[in-house]
Amino acid sequence: MLEDWLAPKAAALEARGLTRRLHARAADDDLIDLAGNDYLGLSTDSRVIAAAAEAIQRWGTGSTASRLVTGTTALHEELESELAAYAGQESALVFSSGYLANLGVVTALGGPGTLLVSDEHIHASLVDACRLSRSRVEVVPHNDLEAVEKVLAERNEPHAVVMTESVFSVLSDKAPLVDLAAVALDNDALLLVDEAHGLGVTGGGHGSVHASGLAGLDHVVVTMTMSKSMASQGGAVLGPRLLRDHLINRARPFIYDTGLNPAACAAALAALRVLQAEPDRPAAVHAAAARLAAACGVPPSSGAVVSVPMPGPRETVRAAELCLDNGVRVGSFRPPSVPDGISRLRLTANAGLSAADLDRACAVIVDAIGQVS
Amino acid sequence: MLEDWLAPKAAALEARGLTRRLHARAADDDLIDLAGNDYLGLSTDSRVIAAAAEAIQRWGTGSTASRLVTGTTALHEELESELAAYAGQESALVFSSGYLANLGVVTALGGPGTLLVSDEHIHASLVDACRLSRSRVEVVPHNDLEAVEKVLAERNEPHAVVMTESVFSVLSDKAPLVDLAAVALDNDALLLVDEAHGLGVTGGGHGSVHASGLAGLDHVVVTMTMSKSMASQGGAVLGPRLLRDHLINRARPFIYDTGLNPAACAAALAALRVLQAEPDRPAAVHAAAARLAAACGVPPSSGAVVSVPMPGPRETVRAAELCLDNGVRVGSFRPPSVPDGISRLRLTANAGLSAADLDRACAVIVDAIGQVS
Ligand SMILES: Cc1ncc(COP(=O)(O)O)c(C=O)c1O
Ligand SMILES: Cc1ncc(COP(=O)(O)O)c(C=O)c1O
Repeated sequence: MLEDWLAPKAAALEARGLTRRLHARAADDDLIDLAGNDYLGLSTDSRVIAAAAEAIQRWGTGSTASRLVTGTTALHEELESELAAYAGQESALVFSSGYLANLGVVTALGGPGTLLVSDEHIHASLVDACRLSRSRVEVVPHNDLEAVEKVLAERNEPHAVVMTESVFSVLSDKAPLVDLAAVALDNDALLLVDEAHGLGVTGGGHGSVHASGLAGLDHVVVTMTMSKSMASQGGAVLGPRLLRDHLINRARPFIYDTGLNPAACAAALAALRVLQAEPDRPAAVHAAAARLAAACGVPPSSGAVVSVPMPGPRETVRAAELCLDNGVRVGSFRPPSVPDGISRLRLTANAGLSAADLDRACAVIVDAIGQVS
Repeated sequence: MLEDWLAPKAAALEARGLTRRLHARAADDDLIDLAGNDYLGLSTDSRVIAAAAEAIQRWGTGSTASRLVTGTTALHEELESELAAYAGQESALVFSSGYLANLGVVTALGGPGTLLVSDEHIHASLVDACRLSRSRVEVVPHNDLEAVEKVLAERNEPHAVVMTESVFSVLSDKAPLVDLAAVALDNDALLLVDEAHGLGVTGGGHGSVHASGLAGLDHVVVTMTMSKSMASQGGAVLGPRLLRDHLINRARPFIYDTGLNPAACAAALAALRVLQAEPDRPAAVHAAAARLAAACGVPPSSGAVVSVPMPGPRETVRAAELCLDNGVRVGSFRPPSVPDGISRLRLTANAGLSAADLDRACAVIVDAIGQVS
């Protein structure tokens, strides 16, 4: 049965060179890692590890139920209040992933009375959130303020949510947040900013919404993940307390999902505290990203990720393999993971890279690109 | 802005006695816990804790990226192969939650050419999966084989997926799996069974699909969560290898989500191993559930959860509070978390309860129900 259904699809992908396969990484592989999203280099920090291990001893290995039942521990509350304070927001609500945080907030605000306005480069989780929301959705060209203003002004729905990312996940460019917030306010709409790649990196770590003076505004909401700068797992929605209360009562991916495990909560909390104690880490990320971008001849990136356009998917895979052979792990974007069909190498800067590692990585990558182009 | 939008909704909920609030549990509260879903009592088992702590030391606190990039470790692969073997399936794919596993498999199989047939009591994550899938969806009456057969036979779509739970999450009753699998086969459809409440509990732990002789069939797929019997966090899809490959390439909540954190992987793996070393644990769960059901005068449950119908939401909350005052933590179901509008106490049996604790819990619960009814 499945054979007839799925085998032809698999063959078609294979023919286009687009089949994805899983490869387990080793624990100690001596590679220079430019593929993971541990931007601040904290997932192997001894303080973060110790906090997670202690949480397991104290709370056990699972949160044991929905956040509404036994799945909320003191750790969840501490993480929420410290995240909110760090980002300059009134409150935070922790989900088990950034994906579910996005689904949760958009579906809880969506519905027939709400127009969703989505940037065309937005992350898959927000695209899915739009589909799930039962709202009318308008997809606007990338970073196009006028298009946002037009669809907001012409709408019939009483409510509207404009969705963007502070630093976009594929191109690592930024959104015009101040202008978007102004347009949203003028049109009685909410601005939802996914700071998955912003928090911990931009605005000295506090994120782009904070850096833009928008944190704490009544019409600006932030979502984030704990899986990148926070070196862990989980997601959160940051904003007014009234919104938090609404999500607790209406966000199905919050209500019907098991709470984030205690180890992950504790790790994110410890990472946030290290970041506050060592506020120079975000600058180290930017410096490393600038060095990678310059070496590859691409414009500087707004975040930790440097995207390098490649001739096609096969060349991208081949270049990544060459890098790996030479001790450098890089990521890649291939269709359908790119907004414009262009395959790219994806290089992630991280605060833990030494100058020597960066030099070596730049040389290896430039050589690999040259070989396949 | 948010004030005008959300405050009236909050007031309306409050007026109906349906406002949900979060309450953090304490680490050592000396309560008898009948609310969490740690069915096998393994989330505080020293072996499970040790395995999780070791994984953090070895792999760090986060998986650092999507499973397709750096988010797959040897732990993910071990967990997948041992879960598949235990459930009698060809392969398994681990997601970061059961919620996302359900969204992933249904959306990867759904679309205009696929009819989805959903039992009306199905879990919120599968309801959301239907909405997200862009398939035509037929909701059929609870456990109604004839209705399933009718919609399958009358369909125009080439493909169809019948969705059920082996043990339903709210009423804890079971699905007619053998008959459903036969109807699916006759009608060239796939049967998707959510074993969130089955695996670890039914079929001696191996789950209801295994116990029904359906494991490993080409047209039967299982989803599960690591957050209940496996004492951890995460989810999985179990079935033919061809399906696993398809999900790796097509399931957006797999591709665009960060891999499960190493501690959670290791905890689930350790719990699975304890379960295999101590195969009497599921029987202890059933014995405790039978005792609770008898005390409350409700029919025996197919799984670990015993649902006790109550006069209304306020009485349910009041009874749960009385239990808590007397040292017993119980859960509750209130609208919209029930398929039929009836509020219920939700009592979870767990293999770690002593006979004395069970006696005490039964007395306290019966008394509380009496006081509010
Ligand atoms: C912009 C963006 N939003 C949301 C997510 C999802 O976060 P998580 O991996 O925690 O589910 C990601 C990446 O994973 C992302 O890049
Ligand atoms: C039947 C069922 N499916 C799926 C889930 C979701 O699993 P998770 O909590 O791992 O997201 C749950 C409960 O949480 C459930 O009861």
